[in-house]
Amino acid sequence: MTGQERSEEKSECVSLSPMREAVPAPPECERVCVFGTGDLGRSLGLRLLQAGYGVVFGSRRPHSSSSLIPHGSQVLGHAAAAQSGHLIFIAVQREHYDFLVPLANQLKGKVLVDLSNNLRKNQYPEANAEYLQSLVPGAEVVKGFNTLSAWSLQKGPSDANRQVYICGESVQAKQAVMAVATKLGFSALDRGFLSVARELEDFPLQLFPQWRLPLYIATGLSAAFFFYLLIRDIIYAYFTQGKDISFRIMVSLANKVCPIVSLIMLSLCYLPGVLASFLQLYRGTKYRRFPDWLDRWMLCRKQLGLLALGFAFLHVLYTLIIPIRSVEHSLKCTRMHIRENRTTEFDTTTAWSGDSYLSLGILGFSLYVLLGITSLPSVSNVLSWREFSFIQSKLGHLTLLLCTAHTYLYGWNKFLSSSTYKWCTPPGYMLCLVLPSVVLLLKLLLITPCVDRTITRIRQGWERRADQRNPKNSQPLIP
Amino acid sequence: MTGQERSEEKSECVSLSPMREAVPAPPECERVCVFGTGDLGRSLGLRLLQAGYGVVFGSRRPHSSSSLIPHGSQVLGHAAAAQSGHLIFIAVQREHYDFLVPLANQLKGKVLVDLSNNLRKNQYPEANAEYLQSLVPGAEVVKGFNTLSAWSLQKGPSDANRQVYICGESVQAKQAVMAVATKLGFSALDRGFLSVARELEDFPLQLFPQWRLPLYIATGLSAAFFFYLLIRDIIYAYFTQGKDISFRIMVSLANKVCPIVSLIMLSLCYLPGVLASFLQLYRGTKYRRFPDWLDRWMLCRKQLGLLALGFAFLHVLYTLIIPIRSVEHSLKCTRMHIRENRTTEFDTTTAWSGDSYLSLGILGFSLYVLLGITSLPSVSNVLSWREFSFIQSKLGHLTLLLCTAHTYLYGWNKFLSSSTYKWCTPPGYMLCLVLPSVVLLLKLLLITPCVDRTITRIRQGWERRADQRNPKNSQPLIP
Amino acid sequence: MTGQERSEEKSECVSLSPMREAVPAPPECERVCVFGTGDLGRSLGLRLLQAGYGVVFGSRRPHSSSSLIPHGSQVLGHAAAAQSGHLIFIAVQREHYDFLVPLANQLKGKVLVDLSNNLRKNQYPEANAEYLQSLVPGAEVVKGFNTLSAWSLQKGPSDANRQVYICGESVQAKQAVMAVATKLGFSALDRGFLSVARELEDFPLQLFPQWRLPLYIATGLSAAFFFYLLIRDIIYAYFTQGKDISFRIMVSLANKVCPIVSLIMLSLCYLPGVLASFLQLYRGTKYRRFPDWLDRWMLCRKQLGLLALGFAFLHVLYTLIIPIRSVEHSLKCTRMHIRENRTTEFDTTTAWSGDSYLSLGILGFSLYVLLGITSLPSVSNVLSWREFSFIQSKLGHLTLLLCTAHTYLYGWNKFLSSSTYKWCTPPGYMLCLVLPSVVLLLKLLLITPCVDRTITRIRQGWERRADQRNPKNSQPLIP
Repeated sequence: MTGQERSEEKSECVSLSPMREAVPAPPECERVCVFGTGDLGRSLGLRLLQAGYGVVFGSRRPHSSSSLIPHGSQVLGHAAAAQSGHLIFIAVQREHYDFLVPLANQLKGKVLVDLSNNLRKNQYPEANAEYLQSLVPGAEVVKGFNTLSAWSLQKGPSDANRQVYICGESVQAKQAVMAVATKLGFSALDRGFLSVARELEDFPLQLFPQWRLPLYIATGLSAAFFFYLLIRDIIYAYFTQGKDISFRIMVSLANKVCPIVSLIMLSLCYLPGVLASFLQLYRGTKYRRFPDWLDRWMLCRKQLGLLALGFAFLHVLYTLIIPIRSVEHSLKCTRMHIRENRTTEFDTTTAWSGDSYLSLGILGFSLYVLLGITSLPSVSNVLSWREFSFIQSKLGHLTLLLCTAHTYLYGWNKFLSSSTYKWCTPPGYMLCLVLPSVVLLLKLLLITPCVDRTITRIRQGWERRADQRNPKNSQPLIP
Repeated sequence: MTGQERSEEKSECVSLSPMREAVPAPPECERVCVFGTGDLGRSLGLRLLQAGYGVVFGSRRPHSSSSLIPHGSQVLGHAAAAQSGHLIFIAVQREHYDFLVPLANQLKGKVLVDLSNNLRKNQYPEANAEYLQSLVPGAEVVKGFNTLSAWSLQKGPSDANRQVYICGESVQAKQAVMAVATKLGFSALDRGFLSVARELEDFPLQLFPQWRLPLYIATGLSAAFFFYLLIRDIIYAYFTQGKDISFRIMVSLANKVCPIVSLIMLSLCYLPGVLASFLQLYRGTKYRRFPDWLDRWMLCRKQLGLLALGFAFLHVLYTLIIPIRSVEHSLKCTRMHIRENRTTEFDTTTAWSGDSYLSLGILGFSLYVLLGITSLPSVSNVLSWREFSFIQSKLGHLTLLLCTAHTYLYGWNKFLSSSTYKWCTPPGYMLCLVLPSVVLLLKLLLITPCVDRTITRIRQGWERRADQRNPKNSQPLIP
Repeated sequence: MTGQERSEEKSECVSLSPMREAVPAPPECERVCVFGTGDLGRSLGLRLLQAGYGVVFGSRRPHSSSSLIPHGSQVLGHAAAAQSGHLIFIAVQREHYDFLVPLANQLKGKVLVDLSNNLRKNQYPEANAEYLQSLVPGAEVVKGFNTLSAWSLQKGPSDANRQVYICGESVQAKQAVMAVATKLGFSALDRGFLSVARELEDFPLQLFPQWRLPLYIATGLSAAFFFYLLIRDIIYAYFTQGKDISFRIMVSLANKVCPIVSLIMLSLCYLPGVLASFLQLYRGTKYRRFPDWLDRWMLCRKQLGLLALGFAFLHVLYTLIIPIRSVEHSLKCTRMHIRENRTTEFDTTTAWSGDSYLSLGILGFSLYVLLGITSLPSVSNVLSWREFSFIQSKLGHLTLLLCTAHTYLYGWNKFLSSSTYKWCTPPGYMLCLVLPSVVLLLKLLLITPCVDRTITRIRQGWERRADQRNPKNSQPLIP
């Protein structure tokens, strides 16, 4: 069936087969060109073929490359290949861009997609895409697809990241590249002009930028409490009783540092939300931006919470192995024999507090794990907004409450005993209770009916003293 | 390069650059209009810009808003903005819809996309979109995008939910909105006419509708067994021996309730599948619908299973802390001293059953966790249908078998002892064994070769007594 | 508004409402046809309706089916339905394809999409799609959508697998099917000609093809070590001391096999990467393919690692229940009483090594879990390439190091004692240390500065002895 036959048929039965309009004439399916026959070029070519494009590879040595390229594509010299498509993917390393200079004529008006990445940030004075544009000023350079690896191109969109970013000067050229991206199963976002290329080239090189601050906080807190407890427990015992219990660093000390850091990190995760509410209450409006530090803090709450979960996980493991530790065990047994007479006089209060302490810890940890699971991208994506906020806010604060109560019960009968304060320092668990107690108290204030009503109204757009605020805000515009 | 130049060039080299057809003339890239410059409006505008649209904001006070809107867009008064695009997104709260009435002329024939949500269900007598349509009868209102938050619009599609729902009277208007959704990286589903708008507006407000029934069941079972065991263990001890062991509520009792509820929930998760098979066997066909209650039960199997996993997780934690409990420990040690002579006479059968009991529990829990992991959306998406059914059916029933055997071994030597039946009531673990035993027995029947063959044939479309059944079914059609 | 009115309006205000071009005339929205009103057909029809298509069902008994089909579609006899759309989905089982033969005339030139699957591999001599093509030679058969179930079609794309595969002879027909797939929210990949149909039909039948080799390895290793340890521990004890400790199989032996297999599997997961680096070093280039066995090994590293994590998880559970085991406990207590005098003389070195052993195990397991979490599809998708390789390579080798050190510490003081070597065989943990030690040593060599520099240069494309290698490679091309 030729193209002519088809268009004749079309005029007869337009309402019955509108599908055909979307079908390009078969031998002239859109052709795109890929320069470079390395891993990335070949994977991209294969994917383009699978999405229904005709693919022409450009190569320095077309003859020796012809065995490598995917079945169904053809390979030509660069100049010949450049003529066969309007869109040319440059899957070549920046160091070899020079070969494009002599092709300036053939590349005039073509769209060149720069896929390249660098090995490290600031490797070159200008972005690769800008360098390419300067070499071939007649072409329209679009930066894009550089966040994809040959591997993710081969796997197909279902299993790999779907998002690609592009930038470039020409709207038209970007639209052409976005159309290809969509057909390949990706979702393209236009990030602006070519000056953003450097930012895009840094994307694959970034190493957990959002985790940096929470990791610094976790490291700092761990180090601080480690040394504090080292002095309080081990060095104190060495000085006052001359005993070497340095082996306790490995398990006992670790098992004190982990829960302390975990509880502090968890309250740091809920503190900014509470502060933001109080700020809105104070300002009487939701239409003013939060200070920058609060914005940044709120953006890393998820990371703070996940690190807190990590420390809680360690705490659970360290706690559960206590009975296995032969050393401790034998010591305890010995002590037990000595105390035997005392332990037999059974105390219900102690039993209640001991069991509640364990039970609260278990429930708190289970909710912690639930919070962690719901923050997995694939789980949070299927939650409605209300479901997500219910889990992260209501269950989150309940987790904090359970873990704080767990810690309070741990030392419920030691607060007033003077032997607790060695060298006049409070034990670690007391220090770590300060922050969560403050967060919980503030939250309690926020959910009292009258405060809650005001907050809700503010969040719905109501403004206190709207008459006073407005002129202030629009002052710069009037004079 | 002007639009004219381009179309001339096109006629010359149509086969080489078909891509260009998809490229709109640059200065006239599609323009859409967004009314409202709040968080949602701005985020939507930014996303539209990134997808290659021209964006015009409509605002009450265009001057004061111009500093807020994303770079590259423009802001006009509502009337002027309405003229600049065929598609208008209404990112304004329902309370302020009145301002659209005077614009009726400018909005005639335009597509208005209602993005609004309410704070609670049934807040207003009619859906926001229907209200909007009544205010501006000349426009074509489409409800849609309301499940997206400003936050998920900013994050881009890779990390957020991709699905959006729309509804409206005009097919044409809906197609236009769906085209925009696709370009933004979302996948739009048409849910029908504007009368569905209320349903769509309730989506972001729903709170785990599928979890409600399983949660009720779990709560009911937990409460029932809690009180049953409270009476059997603690109140019994108080009455018969005068001992106050109420502290056992926190750990010992919880560690009895959790495994019981977990096992019952797990068998409730596999019971409907077994019942459905027997129903198909009895009816001799797969072409008749299951009763409604069975359909609803089958739809919440995943939730039942995950709740069962949660209780199993608690059971594991409660079990592992047993040796840490100082109270219990000291008691046991004391008792041990007394029994010492007896325990030394070592019993291989007890050792075998004790260790098998633990080992089966561990293996059962591990499979449980595996089932839980494969029910994560991102994991189940990469499984083929056969892989998913292998895990959820074969491994699922194996898990049930292991957990049931674990429970049988727990009380293997107590079934016949009369001291087990305090106040003539069986202990909790015996009660919870009934349901899983029934499910396993029925499943065993189903996998016997002869029954299995019939079931397989029925599932392939074979019908028993096809001659008898058909006339009955089609009776209403013949007379 | 008729189509004519619209096109007139368009010429007037082309720059303001370019959106309209994408909108088809409402009454003539694209119509597609679905043959078959079973679960799959109905679900597909519903989804097509929701995506804005007109749907016509073809049925043997159109009257009796009309109550089943989704609202908004119509049902006709097969012949009449075939005329109403260019694209026909065949949602009928292969056994009933015969009914299509008499329709040959109506189906001429139509695109038939074969959705069928088989119950097992090689059920029929040729693929269903090829059989369909042979029955209706005048139609253009496209195989596709067969990996989707009725269930996943109903759920919508957000929660289900997005990837569909198609194949067929006609590029044009495939483009039409891909256009529909895209509109339904799927991402279609063209896998080639109709001869690939068999492969596509096997997709839903495959059962963990990538897990097979790792599972065989895990099973083999488990069996081997199980019997080795059975002989060494239980049979040895029976022969030399006449004691029956067979009950130890359930927990003690399992807890020896699990960590051994886990550690070996983990090193098998990192060995191929190290071997590949050495091969590249030896060859002096990255441009030669790895041997086939190494390629296949590298492709199943993820599965090896996850199985290793599974065994580590079992090891942790088996270890944590040790103190619960009543048997062991009572034995140990008895022994303790006897040794009591010895244990009181406290040894700091033993304490250090015991606690370090436990602590390293906990840290290793935590990293293990972290590796497992990041290999979840939804998590690895949001990681940049550098982040993913940091976790899987750096943290992965650190995990291996921690777990190996954990194992060394377990037996640090038993290496030289002759009583360790029962029947002249080394204990299991010594055997399992060989492989990880080798991997770690080789990795240590690779990260020494001078070797690392060479490797990095090779990975950037540098080739040693380029002059010697090239002629050899291109030899077949020259003569």
